[in-house]
Amino acid sequence: MAITLRQSDADFEKRFAAFLTTKREISPDVDATVRAIIDDVRSRGDAALIDYSRKFDRADLGTLGIAVSRADIDQAYKDADPATVEALRFARDRIHSHHARQMPRDDRYVDPIGVELGSRWTAVEAVGLYVPGGTASYPSSVLMNAVPAKVAGVERIVIVVPASGGVINPLVLVAADIAGVSEIYRVGGAQAVAALAYGTETIRPVAKIVGPGNAYVAAAKRQVFGTVGIDMIAGPSEVLIVADSDNDPDWLAADLLAQAEHDVSAQSILITNDAAFGKSVEAAVERQIKLLPRAETAAASWRDFGAVIVVDDFDAAIPLIDRIAAEHLELAVDDAEALLGRIRNAGAIFVGKHTPEVIGDYVGGSNHVLPTARSARFSSGLTVLDFVKRSSILKLGPDQLRELAPAAIALAKAEGLDAHARSVAIRLNM
Amino acid sequence: MAITLRQSDADFEKRFAAFLTTKREISPDVDATVRAIIDDVRSRGDAALIDYSRKFDRADLGTLGIAVSRADIDQAYKDADPATVEALRFARDRIHSHHARQMPRDDRYVDPIGVELGSRWTAVEAVGLYVPGGTASYPSSVLMNAVPAKVAGVERIVIVVPASGGVINPLVLVAADIAGVSEIYRVGGAQAVAALAYGTETIRPVAKIVGPGNAYVAAAKRQVFGTVGIDMIAGPSEVLIVADSDNDPDWLAADLLAQAEHDVSAQSILITNDAAFGKSVEAAVERQIKLLPRAETAAASWRDFGAVIVVDDFDAAIPLIDRIAAEHLELAVDDAEALLGRIRNAGAIFVGKHTPEVIGDYVGGSNHVLPTARSARFSSGLTVLDFVKRSSILKLGPDQLRELAPAAIALAKAEGLDAHARSVAIRLNM
Repeated sequence: MAITLRQSDADFEKRFAAFLTTKREISPDVDATVRAIIDDVRSRGDAALIDYSRKFDRADLGTLGIAVSRADIDQAYKDADPATVEALRFARDRIHSHHARQMPRDDRYVDPIGVELGSRWTAVEAVGLYVPGGTASYPSSVLMNAVPAKVAGVERIVIVVPASGGVINPLVLVAADIAGVSEIYRVGGAQAVAALAYGTETIRPVAKIVGPGNAYVAAAKRQVFGTVGIDMIAGPSEVLIVADSDNDPDWLAADLLAQAEHDVSAQSILITNDAAFGKSVEAAVERQIKLLPRAETAAASWRDFGAVIVVDDFDAAIPLIDRIAAEHLELAVDDAEALLGRIRNAGAIFVGKHTPEVIGDYVGGSNHVLPTARSARFSSGLTVLDFVKRSSILKLGPDQLRELAPAAIALAKAEGLDAHARSVAIRLNM
Repeated sequence: MAITLRQSDADFEKRFAAFLTTKREISPDVDATVRAIIDDVRSRGDAALIDYSRKFDRADLGTLGIAVSRADIDQAYKDADPATVEALRFARDRIHSHHARQMPRDDRYVDPIGVELGSRWTAVEAVGLYVPGGTASYPSSVLMNAVPAKVAGVERIVIVVPASGGVINPLVLVAADIAGVSEIYRVGGAQAVAALAYGTETIRPVAKIVGPGNAYVAAAKRQVFGTVGIDMIAGPSEVLIVADSDNDPDWLAADLLAQAEHDVSAQSILITNDAAFGKSVEAAVERQIKLLPRAETAAASWRDFGAVIVVDDFDAAIPLIDRIAAEHLELAVDDAEALLGRIRNAGAIFVGKHTPEVIGDYVGGSNHVLPTARSARFSSGLTVLDFVKRSSILKLGPDQLRELAPAAIALAKAEGLDAHARSVAIRLNM
């Protein structure tokens, strides 16, 4: 049973604040182990990758090879269900179209005194994408990470994925191929992150590493940050559904459970203005849980972290929605557009009663890599912007330099930086 | 004496690669100390801030107050040189104009099958800006961090700055006021970062913390990351000047020294196609160093990390420029525009022979918070984008849901996520 919070209760603020700060996941401290693995990969290269893969993945890369070959990919297509391959292509095209609109434009202009200024965007040269093994090996996530990199113009898109028992999910290889990935290596864990950051005989280093992983992968990404760029560290996922009573409780229960089945630390929250409707959704959740193959996971998530919040009205819900700052926000209310306009913090917003969040996981076109654990207060989901970087441009002639010099020299001197002042003054014989 | 590398030498690649990986700064491990300070601020709030400020800054905040008052700011205006105040206003206006062009636009559109998609940008609610004390307390950096936040529409811009011996540089207070900062607190170090992240009785928490600081501040920012957003961790600064022999050696020497005077771990690099010209610049550096108040710092930086790289021609320089990926890049060559078009990695590019980097530090209009230590390969300087975040928007009607359903259900089932498949299917009675 999820908890119920009623805004009209006297202790609501206290309980809501406690609810917000509940830790859903404890990250084990694996820093020292990870540091040793990274050092080992830096000094022994491929040999270290082969040793760790034998130990952690029961995979003999000495025989299989570190690199996945074209023949391996062709075989994966044969092993995959053709309808699923077609669905991946359909998803790729929709993701591509949407992300193509995100490409930032260069800007170059001349200001009123003749100074030329500008922003120029260029693609990151090479990006590594970590793909988890086992049950968390999602081909849809391969598309969501690789397609924006491709749109950005990244030349080398490199995937690392552990081959548990020597095997990689064929749909991961197919998705990588469909997305235009250039190289795939059957390595996982901290050793894969180290290889991407520092390079080995087989794997050339990249400039940025993205993609989700376990505690070892997350710790390795933090440790190599600076040498390479990294994306955000993903936390447990969550959905917030805001719904009036004019909804089918079964639909919303299905949406809450789609989140809960991910992980025992996932979180599903319903905000409604009708306590009785909230009860019907809870009843529907209990009925549907039993039908799920992942019933145990979903039940634990709903029991430990699920919540039904009964608000006085949707006006009063807005500050709560912004404080929760959910990764996924469904607005299943009549005037969803009006509510949308008043909300500040959410990773992705699903508007209206016919937009289940799951569409965004696969084929909506928008990205499913989104800020978790309240970080939508300060960060965004993955976009093309994560694979480009900006150089600012400044160009003066002698006249502009003369015009800007006095203020620059005054500020440099006020900051005690005489060589700064000289660098301007010397050009003007000042 | 800086080192000299000649591209025509047989061991050039080896020496250049070693030069690139030279560590210029060793960060002391202060994680445990910082963790204790953060915990203490979380449990004791203002009382902890008062204790640490007495200990580390010799400042009695019990008497002075934690918050800087309007009267303090008015007094700062009286204490400041009026010409410098005017220069700060001039800089503020130029920074504002340039950054206003960076504001991302919302995008909302309907795709060919009737799905509505979009990106919506909103400002981060509250941002904390760390300003160092002592000699590194630069009013120009206050403008460079606060003005983009203001342009983005951040409602609360909060400054923390240590009051060494009870005193804050009046120009910092003036710059903050000119930039539109809403609150200023006289606290520094890890304790200030903790207060911004978790709040105290006096300081309400913010959603993101930016600005440079010492090893304690950097460690504190890393530790609170996740609870709040942070900007990049700034490393030692560098300039790369690419110059032909048709330049005044004294101008370029002045530019190299403007970088070197910052810090003993700053780095100044000259790339030229003319070895003799390189020697003249080196001679000019040696002459000018003696004239500087910060001669000792500049001399140490130039001796330990300075470099003159003699290339065969500028075509051959391009891959070197991209591998150095300098924070600041000056192109002092005849056809600077042609060279600019071929370079991928640089934080800020100063085009032509009349654009000293120092103009960008103060009054060019572009930002001086830039990626250091080769991180321009994967990251950008500070922009308005650092103070906004994006929500993606998806909106379907029943027809669109029906059209997207088969591919979504196929992918969900292929990933073993049955509740995901159900969430779509249940709406279509499938």
